[in-house]
Amino acid sequence: MSKKNRLIYLPLGGAGEIGMNAYVYGYGPAEKERLILVDLGVTFPDMDGTPGVDLILPDMSWLIERKDRLEAIFITHGHEDHIGAVGRFPELLDVPVYARAFTANLGRGKLTEAGLDEKIIRTVSPWPETVKAGPFTVGFVPVSHSIPESAGLVIDSPEGRIVHSGDFKIDHTPVVGEPFDEELWKEIGKGGVKALMCDSTNVFSEKEGRSESELPDQITALVSSAEGMVVATTFASNVARLKTLAEAGARAGRSICLMGRAMRRMVEAGVETGVLTGFPRVISPEDAQSVPRENLMVLATGSQGERRAASAQLARGKFNGIEMKEGDMFLFSSKTIPGNERGVIRIMNQFSELGVDVVDENSGFYHVSGHANRPDILKMHDLVDPQMVIPMHGEHRHLREHVKLAKTHRREGIVAVNGMMLDLSGNAPTVADYVETGRTYLDGSVKVGALDGIVRDRIRMALNGHVVVTLILDERDEPLGEPWCEAMGLAEVGRSRVPLVEILEADLGQFLGRASERTLADDDKIEQELKRIVRRVSQDEIGKKPEVTVITSRLA
Amino acid sequence: MSKKNRLIYLPLGGAGEIGMNAYVYGYGPAEKERLILVDLGVTFPDMDGTPGVDLILPDMSWLIERKDRLEAIFITHGHEDHIGAVGRFPELLDVPVYARAFTANLGRGKLTEAGLDEKIIRTVSPWPETVKAGPFTVGFVPVSHSIPESAGLVIDSPEGRIVHSGDFKIDHTPVVGEPFDEELWKEIGKGGVKALMCDSTNVFSEKEGRSESELPDQITALVSSAEGMVVATTFASNVARLKTLAEAGARAGRSICLMGRAMRRMVEAGVETGVLTGFPRVISPEDAQSVPRENLMVLATGSQGERRAASAQLARGKFNGIEMKEGDMFLFSSKTIPGNERGVIRIMNQFSELGVDVVDENSGFYHVSGHANRPDILKMHDLVDPQMVIPMHGEHRHLREHVKLAKTHRREGIVAVNGMMLDLSGNAPTVADYVETGRTYLDGSVKVGALDGIVRDRIRMALNGHVVVTLILDERDEPLGEPWCEAMGLAEVGRSRVPLVEILEADLGQFLGRASERTLADDDKIEQELKRIVRRVSQDEIGKKPEVTVITSRLA
Repeated sequence: MSKKNRLIYLPLGGAGEIGMNAYVYGYGPAEKERLILVDLGVTFPDMDGTPGVDLILPDMSWLIERKDRLEAIFITHGHEDHIGAVGRFPELLDVPVYARAFTANLGRGKLTEAGLDEKIIRTVSPWPETVKAGPFTVGFVPVSHSIPESAGLVIDSPEGRIVHSGDFKIDHTPVVGEPFDEELWKEIGKGGVKALMCDSTNVFSEKEGRSESELPDQITALVSSAEGMVVATTFASNVARLKTLAEAGARAGRSICLMGRAMRRMVEAGVETGVLTGFPRVISPEDAQSVPRENLMVLATGSQGERRAASAQLARGKFNGIEMKEGDMFLFSSKTIPGNERGVIRIMNQFSELGVDVVDENSGFYHVSGHANRPDILKMHDLVDPQMVIPMHGEHRHLREHVKLAKTHRREGIVAVNGMMLDLSGNAPTVADYVETGRTYLDGSVKVGALDGIVRDRIRMALNGHVVVTLILDERDEPLGEPWCEAMGLAEVGRSRVPLVEILEADLGQFLGRASERTLADDDKIEQELKRIVRRVSQDEIGKKPEVTVITSRLA
Repeated sequence: MSKKNRLIYLPLGGAGEIGMNAYVYGYGPAEKERLILVDLGVTFPDMDGTPGVDLILPDMSWLIERKDRLEAIFITHGHEDHIGAVGRFPELLDVPVYARAFTANLGRGKLTEAGLDEKIIRTVSPWPETVKAGPFTVGFVPVSHSIPESAGLVIDSPEGRIVHSGDFKIDHTPVVGEPFDEELWKEIGKGGVKALMCDSTNVFSEKEGRSESELPDQITALVSSAEGMVVATTFASNVARLKTLAEAGARAGRSICLMGRAMRRMVEAGVETGVLTGFPRVISPEDAQSVPRENLMVLATGSQGERRAASAQLARGKFNGIEMKEGDMFLFSSKTIPGNERGVIRIMNQFSELGVDVVDENSGFYHVSGHANRPDILKMHDLVDPQMVIPMHGEHRHLREHVKLAKTHRREGIVAVNGMMLDLSGNAPTVADYVETGRTYLDGSVKVGALDGIVRDRIRMALNGHVVVTLILDERDEPLGEPWCEAMGLAEVGRSRVPLVEILEADLGQFLGRASERTLADDDKIEQELKRIVRRVSQDEIGKKPEVTVITSRLA
């Protein structure tokens, strides 16, 4: 073990996926580095791979085992994939959590909800204010994104300066919050930057990004043209968009009503922290019921088709006393995240059945992305002018493309995925270690490891059904009657036109009748044999091999 | 019941969804109409709503109950959503099934596979040849689409002519098969057409469609520029595209290898029926192994990211002895169908990890759709010039938009979804009846109704886990020991840090110890109470309410 100090970078989440960001930086002698954590986010489950799971968290075991070396946590902005897990790892909260005011406001809500002390979160003013954290000095530099007060971090270490871009776009007129300040970033880059950890989300988008301020005209024109009720959805945290939508409604003489808890929470946080000013007066859903539909504009959560959100509920029927109908308009001022198409299309069709006109990105220009497109990513490289670019916030294909892009422009770059520890001390990054990482599921109120097999068992039951066999053996290991079978999620009757469970019970009974004393004395042997028979008979009868649970009870 | 003859239209599948097409036409006195069926397709399951299901079929009960009135079945083309269920309803196969040669070839394969008589399928030559089927005379008119020998149907009845467009695009240079013949369609429209049942898939695509023949130059240029192995995927049935891809490979001096059963089957059917000529010589996967990678071009199934298809297997590692690596190229000459994004992105990232460059629609012009875009749909209306347009082959939003489009151009139209029987006898369509329709799942080897609750139970187990409680009662209804619990798909330990099943067993035991004689004598009552306790305790311990099965065994 060398005693030489080194500067390390270790993504525990967010590098190789879009979601659950968690990046560790460290400085010191190998395996004694003092550490900071940047972001602690979640990702969302889906029926394909994580049915029944409530939230997906990064596996933070590596850091928890080294928490005595942790100096501080920094949260770049208030999106769930950056802040969502902050109340889920109380083990890590012996150190301060730093964030800007709006982000801190949201974070405190999360800690309170989790029954933790909200005082752990400390509000930081933007650059040039900085925070000391062990060997690091960290400053929050405002960037434009799709939530107020997003920040990139300037992380100074004895080995040089690192810039962690956070999620960003280059928007000089962002409607709400600070414009992207190119001069400031150039200034920050001037003294020399060792590495730029850079947002990769939109690296495949070739065109220059568009400003949030290009939307109000389009949206206002659309809302003005509407004759019935207008309901619009976007990400609840996109406070600038909420403002644009609400102002478009107000300008068209409509009362504004917010539906969905997350949206009310975000507007509240915006007002409380002074980020959001001049938001039109909103009315409650109760009051909205008595407003003529042509004078009403509703902003609703659920732009991704989430079943329980306000938009999906409106699509299914009445919500909060409001019902959409023929002649109304529903606007998606949003993009469908890949994987959410089915849910979004479902509510589009439900609205179609109600006679509601659906307007989305394909119908006109009603949304801009919050992430830097390819030319803007390149601009960020040039402004910061780092020795090396280390792409983050992307799936593998995004990271790889981002490195290619950097190299095309003669800049050093490396694909570093979750668990890959880089040593940044030299002139080029080297791989210092591979650390075990993964996912932790919040399942109900319990954290379970992604590899524990619990969710795998649920998926198997969903694909194959479940047969439970109960067998009672008496004091002499003799079966007491025939075994019972219960089937869940399987066709009742198959090829023989006799109920499957009857056939199973008969075949199992026959087997047990002929089984040797040795077999009958051995629970494992019985289980193995009965499973085999259930699978074989089910395959033959209904063409499926179910999951099987065998319960053997011995009368002692 | 009136004795007057009427002309009816009844979609049993495909109207209100993209998939499992099945349209009934009838003529005769009400409820005595003689019937024909157009198409008999399937749709594909997904984990969200139909885990473990093998295929989704339309519920054909209405027609099966009236099969003595069925005259014939007509299949417009060989896509699975039009022909896939033909071997799944032997009850309907007492009548002839008519199709053009290429489609018939595929259909015979399906019947043989299902152990049915392939002779039921009769090959029909295109228009002006026609087939008599009861009161109907039906002709197959070639249309361009993304599979050879697609046809629209001209259905003549005593109440006038109906045009059933089938899936179509307007392509005058389709690479393989007949160009779209505008003059012929105009001719067909001349005598007056009562109704046009029209493909709605691309009604939201504003631009004029592009021809298959625009692709070869782009694809050839791409393949020529490649340095390593090239693997391309597209729908196996898109024989024209396969030819374009293979020729691009051959022109670049590469040997062509087909991977995936469906692709080999399609090329075979194309060659057998004479539709496909001049396809470059293909080599077997075994021979491909000894070809230098820069001289090899593989065409692989699995453009939708299907886990078992050739593309997904190549993305995971070796397949058929072929392994992709750094410097190779993978081309999606296809569009991702909404809902399949996750699977497609998964393999993109796997290729990225292997160092393979992925090229798709976003990287350039490597795919054209097989369906008519909005301007082409309008052109079809104008060519056929029907009294009314009845949109089909679309989700509700497509059908509704298509009717709006027709009405904007002063044509009568109506949204008719599955189960809505229209009477077309008058000058405008009227709703004659609502018929119960739905979906039938092929689950293993058994057909189960979508509302049978079998798949719903599987989904519930996937979301909530499954607890099985076993209880033995002796001759006097006394519990014999404590009840046993087995949990599947649930966290082992929760809030109390004691195994969940131990807590459950203790609480259930306690309940039974205090239970009245009356309760213990009543299986239903026991089941109800034990379920309640399991749910309450599990919610308290791990925050989930599992599915519960209670097995009560009484020693007689």
